[in-house]
Amino acid sequence: MNDLNSTSAYEALKSRFHRLAALQGAQAVLHWDRATMMPEGGAQARAEQQAALAMVGHEMLTSPHLADLAQSAEETAAALPDWDRANLSEMRRLITHANATPADLVEKLARTRSETEMIWRSARAANDYASLAPALQRLLDLTRAQGEAKGAALGLDPYDALLDGYDPNRRAAEIDRLFADLEGFLPSLLREVMEVQRAGPARLPIEGPFRIDLQEKLGREVMEVLGFDFRHGRLDVSHHPFTGGVPDDSRITTRYDEADFTESLMAVIHETGHSLYERGLPEEWRLQPVGRARGMTIHESQSLLFEMQAGRTASFIAWLAPRLKDAFGGEGPAWSPDNLLRHYRKVGPSLIRVQADEVTYPLHVILRYRLERAMIAGDLAAAELPAAWNEGMEKLLGIRPPDDASGCMQDIHWPSGSFGYFPTYTLGALAAAQLFAAAKAAVPGLENSLGRGDFSGLIQWVRANVHSLGSSLTPDEIIVSATGGPLGTAAFQRHIEGRYLNG
Amino acid sequence: MNDLNSTSAYEALKSRFHRLAALQGAQAVLHWDRATMMPEGGAQARAEQQAALAMVGHEMLTSPHLADLAQSAEETAAALPDWDRANLSEMRRLITHANATPADLVEKLARTRSETEMIWRSARAANDYASLAPALQRLLDLTRAQGEAKGAALGLDPYDALLDGYDPNRRAAEIDRLFADLEGFLPSLLREVMEVQRAGPARLPIEGPFRIDLQEKLGREVMEVLGFDFRHGRLDVSHHPFTGGVPDDSRITTRYDEADFTESLMAVIHETGHSLYERGLPEEWRLQPVGRARGMTIHESQSLLFEMQAGRTASFIAWLAPRLKDAFGGEGPAWSPDNLLRHYRKVGPSLIRVQADEVTYPLHVILRYRLERAMIAGDLAAAELPAAWNEGMEKLLGIRPPDDASGCMQDIHWPSGSFGYFPTYTLGALAAAQLFAAAKAAVPGLENSLGRGDFSGLIQWVRANVHSLGSSLTPDEIIVSATGGPLGTAAFQRHIEGRYLNG
Repeated sequence: MNDLNSTSAYEALKSRFHRLAALQGAQAVLHWDRATMMPEGGAQARAEQQAALAMVGHEMLTSPHLADLAQSAEETAAALPDWDRANLSEMRRLITHANATPADLVEKLARTRSETEMIWRSARAANDYASLAPALQRLLDLTRAQGEAKGAALGLDPYDALLDGYDPNRRAAEIDRLFADLEGFLPSLLREVMEVQRAGPARLPIEGPFRIDLQEKLGREVMEVLGFDFRHGRLDVSHHPFTGGVPDDSRITTRYDEADFTESLMAVIHETGHSLYERGLPEEWRLQPVGRARGMTIHESQSLLFEMQAGRTASFIAWLAPRLKDAFGGEGPAWSPDNLLRHYRKVGPSLIRVQADEVTYPLHVILRYRLERAMIAGDLAAAELPAAWNEGMEKLLGIRPPDDASGCMQDIHWPSGSFGYFPTYTLGALAAAQLFAAAKAAVPGLENSLGRGDFSGLIQWVRANVHSLGSSLTPDEIIVSATGGPLGTAAFQRHIEGRYLNG
Repeated sequence: MNDLNSTSAYEALKSRFHRLAALQGAQAVLHWDRATMMPEGGAQARAEQQAALAMVGHEMLTSPHLADLAQSAEETAAALPDWDRANLSEMRRLITHANATPADLVEKLARTRSETEMIWRSARAANDYASLAPALQRLLDLTRAQGEAKGAALGLDPYDALLDGYDPNRRAAEIDRLFADLEGFLPSLLREVMEVQRAGPARLPIEGPFRIDLQEKLGREVMEVLGFDFRHGRLDVSHHPFTGGVPDDSRITTRYDEADFTESLMAVIHETGHSLYERGLPEEWRLQPVGRARGMTIHESQSLLFEMQAGRTASFIAWLAPRLKDAFGGEGPAWSPDNLLRHYRKVGPSLIRVQADEVTYPLHVILRYRLERAMIAGDLAAAELPAAWNEGMEKLLGIRPPDDASGCMQDIHWPSGSFGYFPTYTLGALAAAQLFAAAKAAVPGLENSLGRGDFSGLIQWVRANVHSLGSSLTPDEIIVSATGGPLGTAAFQRHIEGRYLNG
């Protein structure tokens, strides 16, 4: 074949991956539409569309001709410019991951994932874990088989192989170290913070209702302040907030509660962080593997950089408080920046991960990480999960769920087959603390400028040091190049202590 | 290959066409999103997604293995049940059409179509036909080449081959006959109708503004009355009204004008007619070729059955008028059913096809049909189009466009490469008149029930006699089986005379 000489082999690969990325973009829009626009009766048709696209993509990635092209291209990879070499290496990564799982396992996994997810929805609603356990065990068995197959292909342990699919080059040994650090200081720090907050001024309730159209209007204004470009994106409503679409058509969602504006607004800021990352990926590599976001740790670092780091600084909240007051026609001391800060910085153990504060959140993740490692290792069966969960909550957070719905059934991840995803939330939080510290050191007056609603310094820094790198470096290389050191817990610890003990 | 024995060959074909239809469903949703939701900056990314899907579909349809499967299956087609045999024959039709155009011509056509459409948008806005003509000529040349290639494969004249892509088995010789009939009576009938309307009571203006949220609310109510199922569909806004999505997720659009509710409402009724057809297609053949809508003449007959036939009956307007009056808080004789009827039945020559009444509309179509036939035959160049257009308007409608923007540049069809589409509008109008007459003859009291807002009789009849047939018959076979005779002009003439001269 003509395109098997190395230069044209690489060009042929680029053209195939371009098409693949365009098809994945189509999937992303369909996924967004399903969560925001689709009438319920469209579900079956949409499932067919998504399955067809997934199969076409899988067949493209596993075609023997594609593997031949990659091998030819790799023979002279050394002569390629840096970004092309990184692009080729990402292509290989994607090809290896796709080929590692046998086709019949791919198909079984897809079916069992959507079945288990459906069972989970009703089991959670009925608080009936027993009805979920058999399906979850089947899915777990298939996922372990997938981890073993991927592990064999990648030369990794099964759990590391799964992890690698969400966060390239991430290994459990490193996570063990980081999470042991966190467990070393977080529980005592949590007690200290709660003591400080108990001793401090009381949190005045902010009285609603807060009209949803006004919440939305304010959310849009904050998005613009954060640099969101509505010519290239949208804000809509979904059951769970998420960022969807593609870099040049980036669609975020939130959900509204008339009794409380704080969650919808922080969800908007969180998703805007994800969206800015997508938009800031290198434009000249839009539909190539090297142009994609670099895994879930870096992605989560970008949302948390805006939501938790910049978004909860005293200076930004001081900018935000009078605007909230105006927007909702509020009056009195409850609307003061200090009181708003007390709402946005309230710390304490709670049952539900997605509602947890930044001090306790890592403890939720550590629990899930240990449980899913044990499950993938075959040391914990689905039937044993509730007991292990409740015991872990008691040990890490000092509270025990009253039922499985607010315990081991609260998250969609395992019932949808995502094992190896959870740790990236906390790795992202560590990275966000480290990146924000580096940005403040590099950009004079950065924190003050947030107090004027000016995010340009932060955005320029993060564009240059994270977004524009795409997948040209590994996640850890990005952290090192942006912050001067490897991912660690020190910046996060300093951040928590600074904000909650000395703040 | 295993699947080349005839039974399993047919099953293998079904599975490939199932995937193809699912991918086309994905395209349909992306197309809808582009017109309703997409931010402008997403256009380039969307074009890549749509091109990738189109190429995947084209490659599936032209794969040699698919043709082999079809040939094997056809060897024992006679033994298949009727619907399967019709399904196989539709598969063959799609394969033949797809293979007829060489791959490089497909690619050139796609590129030139989107280029020409973009040039057309600015040329029309600037009323500058000279800037459009060269691109239009290039597109015309490519379309002629496509017509010749398809004609050679199908054993047809080039124009018939293009026509066949929009309306299976339709031939120009038949259209010539039908359009000659129309031209024989329409101009004089038009003069008579205008004379009657001049002599009748004056049309009282209905004063706005009409709030858009109220127009939308009323539109939704009318959709429900017409049988639209919002669990399987949506109503949104777009620049031009259309019906998109897939049968079980059928999405219609309209556009609103605060000064006039009549157009938005009739657009809703028109698109609901299209949507009911899609929803009523045979469910057990959802993602198979035989389960698809049967071409554009039948499709347009369904929208016009509701918009022009049922939707402008005196009984339905009598039901509608008080609801309009209530919805907008109107008062006085302008809101009477008679006056509303005078608005919805106003007849007279006009420049713009999409705003034309049902008496003059066919004359607009006849003009376009003759011009596009001449262009495809090579007898009319793009540069000569404006003069031919203006002369034709003068001859058929007695008016001359003041400029090309309201003349030969008004429609998107030619700049987007659709030659052979226009006649289906008027063939659809003829079919609608014939179907409505047959429905009234078959369902006692049908017209009276419309006066109670009860469309169930009409819907049941049209489901049984048109929708549920899918593509199991040719368009003309559907007309014959539903109305007892072939497509003709008699029912349409009786309809126009009955409504406008004796109505």
